[in-house]
Amino acid sequence: MNELIAGVLDGRARAIARLLTLVENSETAAETAVTALYPHTGQAHIIGITGPPGSGKSTLVNEIAKLLRQQGQRVGIIAVDPSSPFTGGALLGDRVRMRDLAGDSGVFIRSMASRGSLGGLAQATWAAIKVLDAAGYEKVLVETVGAGQAEVDIARAAHTTLVVEAPGMGDDVQAFKAGILEIADILVVNKADRPGSERVVRSLELMLHLGPIGGTRHHGRILTSPTPTANGTAGGWQIPVLPTAASEGRGTTELVAQIQQHLAHLQTSGEWQKREQERCRHELRQLLQLRLLARLDTAVSQSEQDALVTAVAAREIDPYTAVREIYNELYARDWRLESGQPPSLISNVQSPFPENL
Amino acid sequence: MNELIAGVLDGRARAIARLLTLVENSETAAETAVTALYPHTGQAHIIGITGPPGSGKSTLVNEIAKLLRQQGQRVGIIAVDPSSPFTGGALLGDRVRMRDLAGDSGVFIRSMASRGSLGGLAQATWAAIKVLDAAGYEKVLVETVGAGQAEVDIARAAHTTLVVEAPGMGDDVQAFKAGILEIADILVVNKADRPGSERVVRSLELMLHLGPIGGTRHHGRILTSPTPTANGTAGGWQIPVLPTAASEGRGTTELVAQIQQHLAHLQTSGEWQKREQERCRHELRQLLQLRLLARLDTAVSQSEQDALVTAVAAREIDPYTAVREIYNELYARDWRLESGQPPSLISNVQSPFPENL
Repeated sequence: MNELIAGVLDGRARAIARLLTLVENSETAAETAVTALYPHTGQAHIIGITGPPGSGKSTLVNEIAKLLRQQGQRVGIIAVDPSSPFTGGALLGDRVRMRDLAGDSGVFIRSMASRGSLGGLAQATWAAIKVLDAAGYEKVLVETVGAGQAEVDIARAAHTTLVVEAPGMGDDVQAFKAGILEIADILVVNKADRPGSERVVRSLELMLHLGPIGGTRHHGRILTSPTPTANGTAGGWQIPVLPTAASEGRGTTELVAQIQQHLAHLQTSGEWQKREQERCRHELRQLLQLRLLARLDTAVSQSEQDALVTAVAAREIDPYTAVREIYNELYARDWRLESGQPPSLISNVQSPFPENL
Repeated sequence: MNELIAGVLDGRARAIARLLTLVENSETAAETAVTALYPHTGQAHIIGITGPPGSGKSTLVNEIAKLLRQQGQRVGIIAVDPSSPFTGGALLGDRVRMRDLAGDSGVFIRSMASRGSLGGLAQATWAAIKVLDAAGYEKVLVETVGAGQAEVDIARAAHTTLVVEAPGMGDDVQAFKAGILEIADILVVNKADRPGSERVVRSLELMLHLGPIGGTRHHGRILTSPTPTANGTAGGWQIPVLPTAASEGRGTTELVAQIQQHLAHLQTSGEWQKREQERCRHELRQLLQLRLLARLDTAVSQSEQDALVTAVAAREIDPYTAVREIYNELYARDWRLESGQPPSLISNVQSPFPENL
């Protein structure tokens, strides 16, 4: 592991690839890698790209990467793909992506598929971002498929978030229901060569100016406590709505210019520090949640939990009572462990701890 | 509250509406209501309907409800809408929905919007399902917008899950990336009057027969440990792919027949009990997670957590070390609370507990 860490800090592609694989497959590896690399992070500009399936995000990400490369910046790309088990992983995957960018040592591309729980995927994604940051990539592009909380969570890892829409995705009004518009710093209407794109642009602009908290973006906070500010702005940032046709390279130069302008805005306004704070808060919260559940599963065995699940399914007890029992048992056992006193056992549950602990 | 509970058990619409509002707005109310109503639940056939925005789910749900009413069944509808703060709640909402079904006392419709955390929405949805179940609705339809983990979580509350697709939603291949196909008992290709619908039907049928775990459905389990069985089947159930044009009432009679057939299959195969078990397991897990985080926030104050967040953002400590500190502090304080011994404090953190506790 130490050798890999050194290789990553040297920016060696093979070491980066190997560490990313470890990090994706093991939470312990993620913890070790992040702990070692963390002091070397904080330099990268992390850019999230999200939007519904079919909005052409992958093509857009490739175009952005090409333009950033022309500006001499090193670019890391993480494509988060919470794939259906149907497909067995990324369908298009790295192969299509690599076609345009292959052979350029200034670009590193990795697809991450959901192998287990969502918590695992988010954790692996955060760790992967830190690996690329520590490896010296100045821009890290994180592409997510989604329209759900999962994707919002992953997007929260970003400094600058692009929300991509496209015309012809169904009822206009539906497009705003996905719950992701409020995280946008830049709104992109891709496939702008298709009919109806001007209407989507106008609808989005209208939303920005009319919405109750239109355009306001409080990174990592808006979902729990929306604080209205000036419409269409976030901390002085005017959220642009940009039409692009990524497959023809149209509008992408302007988009990259806006991305760089947003970075400048973050740095001069003090917003960068605020977002770092929110990013860290969110990540800590998620890690704590995983840790607490792991602690629970150590203290209260699967078969004990199963017995309660069966009782709930049979309507013998209600779910809240079951939760209280598991929770109390967890604390009783922790207490016993610390103080040497016997725990208050719930009925027909065996303690997993030896008597003399 | 007791009066409301009695009213719900009598099936009185006004009591149901008031209790649902309480349940949506307060976790304590949800707990009280579920604890009281739980012994009266377990009769309803819970049907989840999910799919991407623009696939016409709302119209489809209305058609299903109308047909079920013609069969004399009482129908509850919960439309889960993780709305953007942009829109301030359900955009179309109950008004459009009510037009067709208004005045029918055998139908109860409620939209639920995401007000706070996702955990809160899921918890409120589960509670609302139990309220309608206890109130005697034989079918409870739960409609979700999504393509993300959030929606998968909510869909896990169902006995029968419909995944709705539609033609013209972008690249075909993208449609399968949403991670929701694997939860389907019935696949619906809505808007089948549009061009390309036959291709979507064929693609889905191909997926069912070719996929590595094509069509297999292990309710609440597949995401963590997919267990391949016969292709295109789940416990002996052949997953149908049904074209519908809900706005013209086409294909919906066949769809409702398939829903009833799936119920019969669940009951005769023993799958009903298995799904009840998985439903309960998932719900307990989510409730425990919320409870553990609440416990954490009581023991370790927001300002203490903030101090660590700031240190992480400044790269003074790494996130995993911060998590360990918060976690250890939580346990130290619990121990002190129980045993009267002083906790091992982390630096510059004040204990929120009085000295003589």
